[in-house]
Amino acid sequence: MKNFRITLQYDGSRYDGWQKQGNTDNTIQGKIEAMLTKLFEQQVEIQGSGRTDAGVHALGQVASFSVKTDLGPAKVMERMNTYLPKDIIVTDCQLTDARFHARLNAKNKTYIYRIVTGCIRPVFGRQYVLWHQERLDTDSMRKASECLIGEHDFKSFLGNRHYKKSTIRTIESITITEDMIKSGEAEFPEITIAFTGNGFLPNMVRILTGTLIEIGEGQRSLSDMEDILKGCDRALAGPTAPAHGLTLLKVVY
Amino acid sequence: MKNFRITLQYDGSRYDGWQKQGNTDNTIQGKIEAMLTKLFEQQVEIQGSGRTDAGVHALGQVASFSVKTDLGPAKVMERMNTYLPKDIIVTDCQLTDARFHARLNAKNKTYIYRIVTGCIRPVFGRQYVLWHQERLDTDSMRKASECLIGEHDFKSFLGNRHYKKSTIRTIESITITEDMIKSGEAEFPEITIAFTGNGFLPNMVRILTGTLIEIGEGQRSLSDMEDILKGCDRALAGPTAPAHGLTLLKVVY
Repeated sequence: MKNFRITLQYDGSRYDGWQKQGNTDNTIQGKIEAMLTKLFEQQVEIQGSGRTDAGVHALGQVASFSVKTDLGPAKVMERMNTYLPKDIIVTDCQLTDARFHARLNAKNKTYIYRIVTGCIRPVFGRQYVLWHQERLDTDSMRKASECLIGEHDFKSFLGNRHYKKSTIRTIESITITEDMIKSGEAEFPEITIAFTGNGFLPNMVRILTGTLIEIGEGQRSLSDMEDILKGCDRALAGPTAPAHGLTLLKVVY
Repeated sequence: MKNFRITLQYDGSRYDGWQKQGNTDNTIQGKIEAMLTKLFEQQVEIQGSGRTDAGVHALGQVASFSVKTDLGPAKVMERMNTYLPKDIIVTDCQLTDARFHARLNAKNKTYIYRIVTGCIRPVFGRQYVLWHQERLDTDSMRKASECLIGEHDFKSFLGNRHYKKSTIRTIESITITEDMIKSGEAEFPEITIAFTGNGFLPNMVRILTGTLIEIGEGQRSLSDMEDILKGCDRALAGPTAPAHGLTLLKVVY
């Protein structure tokens, strides 16, 4: 048996998220496992660094799988890419230790949430950004995000009421940048919120983003964030921002 | 009557090109005219700077139309963008001279053809680039393109056998650049070929690109281009490159 570690990009638009749901499902994990099982003529299971929600994209998802094969990593990557659908691609493949586990060994992950603001609706790449017509006050958003850094109980930002495990996580950094993105003759103001942490609860990044957007709109004051965090109550936080603006950027081991 | 000049962006993926084909058609011009006619409750006709083929995109198409209205250009743009489909957007709208004609007054146009090379198939933005797995020799392509600059009979690069008008056009410049485009953890070599000229024959930019690709592959020598141009015979040139890699970048007046 060889253990392979792969890096994946996917456009999550038409999938029901990463995590497989059965044999005939429409998930990214399910599609890759079905393809590998056919390719290697043996049952193959693939472990991702974590789940991404339905509609969420990845520029650097990491996954691993064990398989009995004579092929080296370059050939495995080439074969996989021949059979994967047009919206999934393996960008790196390496042989790894049999003990490597893509989820358990992850040191941290970075997600980015992209927001185009201004009166001009984006056309190119519209599948990967949220369009928010009013401008957002990124200074307030930046200040409000400061209290989230470090180890906290993020229960207020948990999207699954039946979640039984610990809701304590560590956020290492939240970086909010605003740039003018040139697109032909037009320019679009684009805000990117990058979240790096040791793990994220279900919907956590999207609820954090929804809350930061309300602060950026001036609907909430920036001091609200601390009360929301301390309250440990989902009802205190803002809405869950749409899935399509979110991308898993990278996983560090 | 007021005459408006608009700049448009569109993702041409799901349209049968710019030029309208009837009342119930699936063209960009047809969609915009139908929308304007409904919006202003009067028959509105829109003139584009030129046709784009089915599947070709625009970052800076220019068009004009006359309409009886009290609205100013900012309001017209806002209303249009409210009703246009998600893959078409007006990025600029100005009042213009009644004599302004988007096609006849155009000084030159720039089209770009984007090609991602290398073994990794692009996932994000795949709708707007051609993927060509083998690397291309851009030096040869650049040298081969030199003989095309200036006023020539481009009949060899004409995709319509029934075309009756003059096949003489002037190409002002062809610029071929190659960059590494960072996409998350991966990098993609991307070639952009920018064609600027006073006008282009049907399919001309795509046939020029198809021929340049054959030269970049080493299938043809770079001196072939001059013979193709002089031959005035479509059969001498290379294939028509796929529509989805082509974008109308801008029109200068």
